[in-house]
Amino acid sequence: MRVVDIIQKKKRGEAITENEINFIVQGYVNEEIPDYQMSAFLMAVYFKGMNKKEIADLTLAFVESGDRNDLSAIHGVKVDKHSSGGVGDKLSLVIIPLVASVGVPVAKMSGRGLGHTGGTIDKLEAIEGFKTVLDRETFINNVNNYKMAIVGQSANLTPADKKIYALRDVTATVDSIPLIASSIMSKKIASGADCIVLDVKVGSGAFMKSIDEAVELARTMVEIGKSLNKKTIAVVTDMNQPLGHEVGNANEVKEAIEILKGNGSEDETTIALTLASYMTVLGGAFKDFDTAYQELRRIIKSGKAVEKFKELLSIQGGNPEVVNDPNILPQSKYHIEIKSSESGYVSAIDAESIGITAMLLGAGREKKDDPIDFSAGVTMVKKVGDKVNPGDVLCILHTNLEDRQKAGQIAKGAYSFSLQKPEPGKYIHEVIQ
Amino acid sequence: MRVVDIIQKKKRGEAITENEINFIVQGYVNEEIPDYQMSAFLMAVYFKGMNKKEIADLTLAFVESGDRNDLSAIHGVKVDKHSSGGVGDKLSLVIIPLVASVGVPVAKMSGRGLGHTGGTIDKLEAIEGFKTVLDRETFINNVNNYKMAIVGQSANLTPADKKIYALRDVTATVDSIPLIASSIMSKKIASGADCIVLDVKVGSGAFMKSIDEAVELARTMVEIGKSLNKKTIAVVTDMNQPLGHEVGNANEVKEAIEILKGNGSEDETTIALTLASYMTVLGGAFKDFDTAYQELRRIIKSGKAVEKFKELLSIQGGNPEVVNDPNILPQSKYHIEIKSSESGYVSAIDAESIGITAMLLGAGREKKDDPIDFSAGVTMVKKVGDKVNPGDVLCILHTNLEDRQKAGQIAKGAYSFSLQKPEPGKYIHEVIQ
Repeated sequence: MRVVDIIQKKKRGEAITENEINFIVQGYVNEEIPDYQMSAFLMAVYFKGMNKKEIADLTLAFVESGDRNDLSAIHGVKVDKHSSGGVGDKLSLVIIPLVASVGVPVAKMSGRGLGHTGGTIDKLEAIEGFKTVLDRETFINNVNNYKMAIVGQSANLTPADKKIYALRDVTATVDSIPLIASSIMSKKIASGADCIVLDVKVGSGAFMKSIDEAVELARTMVEIGKSLNKKTIAVVTDMNQPLGHEVGNANEVKEAIEILKGNGSEDETTIALTLASYMTVLGGAFKDFDTAYQELRRIIKSGKAVEKFKELLSIQGGNPEVVNDPNILPQSKYHIEIKSSESGYVSAIDAESIGITAMLLGAGREKKDDPIDFSAGVTMVKKVGDKVNPGDVLCILHTNLEDRQKAGQIAKGAYSFSLQKPEPGKYIHEVIQ
Repeated sequence: MRVVDIIQKKKRGEAITENEINFIVQGYVNEEIPDYQMSAFLMAVYFKGMNKKEIADLTLAFVESGDRNDLSAIHGVKVDKHSSGGVGDKLSLVIIPLVASVGVPVAKMSGRGLGHTGGTIDKLEAIEGFKTVLDRETFINNVNNYKMAIVGQSANLTPADKKIYALRDVTATVDSIPLIASSIMSKKIASGADCIVLDVKVGSGAFMKSIDEAVELARTMVEIGKSLNKKTIAVVTDMNQPLGHEVGNANEVKEAIEILKGNGSEDETTIALTLASYMTVLGGAFKDFDTAYQELRRIIKSGKAVEKFKELLSIQGGNPEVVNDPNILPQSKYHIEIKSSESGYVSAIDAESIGITAMLLGAGREKKDDPIDFSAGVTMVKKVGDKVNPGDVLCILHTNLEDRQKAGQIAKGAYSFSLQKPEPGKYIHEVIQ
């Protein structure tokens, strides 16, 4: 078998075999196949795509390139959740205790963030004492006893995907649906989940800019799940403005607590309940989505959901008092109000610009080992549809940095205005199962 | 400027600028841009093509990556000829003296062969004493005094193209017309020619299998010539069977002499006269193609053409006696007749198979430094349209090797037969200028 023939075959638009996929993926990981052949192959995949079988084979080749988490010691159906990433997305913090509260086990392994703000693991570390490293036994026991645990990713999962992702990043081959779908799904499958619920974001602040693209990605991932016997549901959710009102780390924890208390904004509450409902249905706790949704909403109202979050903090060493008094979370020195110079209605908020603002204020990492300032972030005072007069505060920047002029300009520039009140957008665009 | 953005732009099908092309080509030659980015770029070019301006810019970037032959000391219009490569193609040996005989200077730099048989330089080395290395002064003087000289390529011409070609070969990006056209034309332009006549072969034995493709390649190269102010004419010629009756090195020299004596087969004579006619028109010797063709045919008949070849041998140290007695050329030990087991008409001869046969007999190189057996080759006794009875000799293998069974099988397998006499094919499919 010669790599050049496999590239040629894909270039002509032919399907390649499982053997050929394994040959090229394993050979690449073992450094028998050079970067330049892999990048030519990836570009051919970008142009010619892959069929369902090829995508499933590629996903499995990624999984088999590394370790696979063994979660068999955990009782029940393990349901994992993945978000394709958005600005202000703190929903994992809400969903873990919510799903666990009805007895469905959540054994969450999460990455650190690279980009606008920290990842879920970083956000939790904003809470004093919270441990994101647990030994295997404690992790399994916590899930069995409390139905939840969250740790940073440590095992050597999908090294082939990691190596190929790094190459895609520098060869303009990131935006290929077969490659994105197999990358995400391979990580979830290697993590040991039985079922997967995917939050595919679409809009100005997401990787997928159009609903068609997002639906295609969602469908492709659901198909991979089917091929590999992992029940998968994908929810296409809106990311045309930041989620909720808080973007950062400590302030996102604070907002997550509000959602769990039943005081969350409508967009975040709806999306969190939707994702959690599908997870609990897949986990066998409810017979259908509507029942799950009603029941989970009731659990939030009853105070049981936020109590479960308090429990998560207790068992992983975090100070549970933050639930009663979120002001003990890290606070920044400066809070700068960004005021409107226009009047009208907010018609759009470019989520990506708000993400960049947060990063400039210290909330995110540009490089892998950059430190994060947990207290930094942005509070979105005005959101799409809100009425604004000149001088009204649009958003508040939280930072410890003296130099925040550029961040302020970008934040202000993220807002667009209209004379008429815009039609309310949808939170959930499509569900694929 | 970032390479990844240039790749992205080309991937989207946008035209890239002269600056971007220079950046990526120079960066690659200087090893500032890695192979994996170049190969992704090449694959994007394969899928999205390039416009006339981009192709001309790429050609010039290749030219400027290395030396440029300075032929300004040669009087007159220097016309170069290039063949895209075929089996049995000995036409340069005919064309050099033929064009020189009417006073148009031919300052030929030629490569060695890699593949079926040797290149023009290798074929000439089959002649005892022929020197393919001349110092610059002798080369220039010979062209000025005798209107002809031929040497092996020694200068550092188009290193960018060489490096990129090697990468294309292992990344399935060879068959891209903008890349093929810019590669060929850059070499011709760096060689110092004022005008260029291209022989673009089409058919089973050529790189271009269809007339449409060959015409597209021909048009693209003529356009490059126009853009860079080098008058260029491309002749699309047939390669659906080997050219003439001899395939090898010494035996091709012998056949070239027969063509120059006026005893050549019709296909080779027609193509050689056509190419030489365009060269002499571009060189200013004749007012139009028809006049050139009649005059050159007359020169062959008069014996002046073969005398000019004898002169070429004399001035470059080769034994001119081969013209009178071609049997003093190297002869192989074995001559194996391949006989037909069928009756009917020869309907096709797969030129590529005959090329492989010649290589197996010792006539070509598989690797760059393999030795060549000048005496090895194939004589095509029967050609397309000839009547054949069982037992008739189809072709004769010339070799010094004991083991020639495989070569014999391949040669025999190259022949196809039909009951009816096939329609005669065309030698010249199209002329683009």
